[in-house]
Amino acid sequence: MKIQTPPGMRDFYPEEMRLHNWLMDHWRGASRTFGFSEYEGPIFEFLDLYTLKSGDEIVSQLFNFEDRGGRRFAIRPEMTPTLARMVAARANALPRPIKWFSTPRMCRAEKPQRGRLREFFQWNADILGPDDPLADAEVIALAVNFLRRIGLTENEVVIRTSSRPLVSSLFATIGIAPENFGRAFELLDRRERMPAEAFEKAWTDALGHSTPVEKVIELLHGQSFESICTLAEQAGPDGLRAAEHMSAFRDALRQFGAWPYCELDLSVVRGLAYYTGIVFEIHPRNVALRALLGGGRYDDLVGMLGGPPLTGVGFGMGDVPVIELLTELGKLPELKPTLDFFVIDADATLLTKVLEIVACLRNADYSADFSYKRAALGKQLRTASTRNARYVVIVGVELAEKQEIGLKEMTSGRQEGVDAASFLADPRAVLSGMRWDGNLSEPRP
Amino acid sequence: MKIQTPPGMRDFYPEEMRLHNWLMDHWRGASRTFGFSEYEGPIFEFLDLYTLKSGDEIVSQLFNFEDRGGRRFAIRPEMTPTLARMVAARANALPRPIKWFSTPRMCRAEKPQRGRLREFFQWNADILGPDDPLADAEVIALAVNFLRRIGLTENEVVIRTSSRPLVSSLFATIGIAPENFGRAFELLDRRERMPAEAFEKAWTDALGHSTPVEKVIELLHGQSFESICTLAEQAGPDGLRAAEHMSAFRDALRQFGAWPYCELDLSVVRGLAYYTGIVFEIHPRNVALRALLGGGRYDDLVGMLGGPPLTGVGFGMGDVPVIELLTELGKLPELKPTLDFFVIDADATLLTKVLEIVACLRNADYSADFSYKRAALGKQLRTASTRNARYVVIVGVELAEKQEIGLKEMTSGRQEGVDAASFLADPRAVLSGMRWDGNLSEPRP
Repeated sequence: MKIQTPPGMRDFYPEEMRLHNWLMDHWRGASRTFGFSEYEGPIFEFLDLYTLKSGDEIVSQLFNFEDRGGRRFAIRPEMTPTLARMVAARANALPRPIKWFSTPRMCRAEKPQRGRLREFFQWNADILGPDDPLADAEVIALAVNFLRRIGLTENEVVIRTSSRPLVSSLFATIGIAPENFGRAFELLDRRERMPAEAFEKAWTDALGHSTPVEKVIELLHGQSFESICTLAEQAGPDGLRAAEHMSAFRDALRQFGAWPYCELDLSVVRGLAYYTGIVFEIHPRNVALRALLGGGRYDDLVGMLGGPPLTGVGFGMGDVPVIELLTELGKLPELKPTLDFFVIDADATLLTKVLEIVACLRNADYSADFSYKRAALGKQLRTASTRNARYVVIVGVELAEKQEIGLKEMTSGRQEGVDAASFLADPRAVLSGMRWDGNLSEPRP
Repeated sequence: MKIQTPPGMRDFYPEEMRLHNWLMDHWRGASRTFGFSEYEGPIFEFLDLYTLKSGDEIVSQLFNFEDRGGRRFAIRPEMTPTLARMVAARANALPRPIKWFSTPRMCRAEKPQRGRLREFFQWNADILGPDDPLADAEVIALAVNFLRRIGLTENEVVIRTSSRPLVSSLFATIGIAPENFGRAFELLDRRERMPAEAFEKAWTDALGHSTPVEKVIELLHGQSFESICTLAEQAGPDGLRAAEHMSAFRDALRQFGAWPYCELDLSVVRGLAYYTGIVFEIHPRNVALRALLGGGRYDDLVGMLGGPPLTGVGFGMGDVPVIELLTELGKLPELKPTLDFFVIDADATLLTKVLEIVACLRNADYSADFSYKRAALGKQLRTASTRNARYVVIVGVELAEKQEIGLKEMTSGRQEGVDAASFLADPRAVLSGMRWDGNLSEPRP
């Protein structure tokens, strides 16, 4: 009976796994250099954790189920609620600022289609504590560090920065009532994913005819920061404060060296209800693909979950859009399997010595392998080459004659005989004495 | 509203995460040295994948749910079915032998109690292709490599090795009918976890009064390998073959250097229905804790899932029992947070220079951080110490006077002034010129 991979889910065969690990290593590497600590949470949470913030309508987008005790759970569709729950539970014991990252697996009950998977991984990084716009800029600098690591330049991706309070103050200047801001954010966020007519209708239903959407787009899109500030100041003290905050944020982006990737685009508002400050997204510049990252500042999440009031700023970056963009740009890395040593024998009777050498190399923390099928020397050498081995140890007749084994460097083809007993006693010492390429004495990381 | 961690699930705060990563790194490190390739699968599978092998009675032990299309899924409770499914789907394209490992997260709908979590991680390693007992020994050698890495000696843990065909041949000598072997294996596997009376009743119900369990235990437990072989040979050609296989397996354990950890114990039979050959478990020696690992050879799994007949041998090791045992033995590692540089200022006006230096160090792949709160120098130094920073960069009045910054090694307390421009141009070169401890020029892995 053939059973398939569930729709919208992925199998990671070794080749895909190498790419996955490459991505995870760069997410982790960037987070490490920025002094972020790693955390993780459970794969499913109480369903309430998600309905609390987003209402019951989110349930249909979640994989949810009951346990035998009748408790309702859902597989996590995002990490921020888990982060807020964990921080709320220990808020007073945690040193501030809380700079945390995670690379969780998560699921959404999407209708499976190209680019919309049901299961994915998402890099999350958050700074909780400081309300300084420096923190907003630092998480963006962190994302930029990652982009540079994987070779995505400012010509290929753009970070669109915005501010909900700033947009709100502009809304006020054209007569949108504060109680409609939330609905307006939500609709604007979905605009590019909706047919134009459906959007027009939804917008008019929510906000009436007095604020046509063209007017709003014109207001938000493509204006200089200076003219936006002038408008915001006219909206009153909240607008002035939002403009000053944005200005300090832009200075900090320059100080962190993230500026070349960034643009101002107030049409970015993010869909999630919990954002309260600066928001941002990373988009491919010349390729029609989804956003790589979305994030922003949220002020009320930790308090909502029983913790003290604690402001935070952070982002989520999905693995799927990153891999899609690299594929589209022809920038996927070539990742071959690696092996330090492949040990082969000239005769099946020498297998015991092969195993002894393999065990010795593995104990010395080298990666080492051998062939299960006793085969001709040439065939075993080809296997070593397929496995991408750096060195081959050849156990042959010289063992009986001269107590020697052969050591062959695969890239150069150079081969030398070495004393078998010395090699077994301390392979690292023997290898470092040979200095073929200066790296022999160190196992590959 | 306070929402709890779901029962039987864990939050990994940074401290627990360091321990988790330490364990994962050793699982991965051991797998790498043995030439195993990493793979992964989806967090949930079609429910059929589990009922196919174990029947409908397993459903109550799984977290299972339907999607909107009415398809039934379950969160994976083990990795072997996923492995078999993936191998079956590409069996003819995969180079042999298939030596794969994974460190998946999985869930079981247990009643939460001490040591029985609903969510855990499990190291899986399998060799598919060779029917050579060498492969059975190699996966055990891999487990031993891991045990040595984390400091568990043969005085603390024991690998109990057994063989289902060998036990079957002994069953035959005392008149247990072949159709009852499966039920006998299952009951024997659960014996230590059942009250004695309940076990006696279940045993008699299944196997009748003619083969009292004491007789079976006496037969299986504590006999020498030689006397077992003699008995097995009396059972006929299957028994002889099983004894020879076991003998070759034991030789291979010696060759791989895994022997000191291993014992023969035929009362180990494993509960899962799919084992067909050698089976094994790793137990703590002097501590009443659960098995760390269980595994064995399975011959029919890949074929059952639509692939070609393909034999395999492998194991699963849970993170929870390993951490419990290390805790019990006082052998948990001390894992502190690490940071290469903490950059501090003598005056709040110098923050711009602090950020410039932080950005420069991070771009050079050092981990570097700074304080969000402008505070007195002594307080910032204490923060650097709490963060376990190796070096502190001090931006003070010397910057304006002599264009110098201070560099302080935290372990030795040594401090020197260095030219700020040179440091910013190439921090690695400046650091390697100082040679305080010879490692300065290399970022910490």
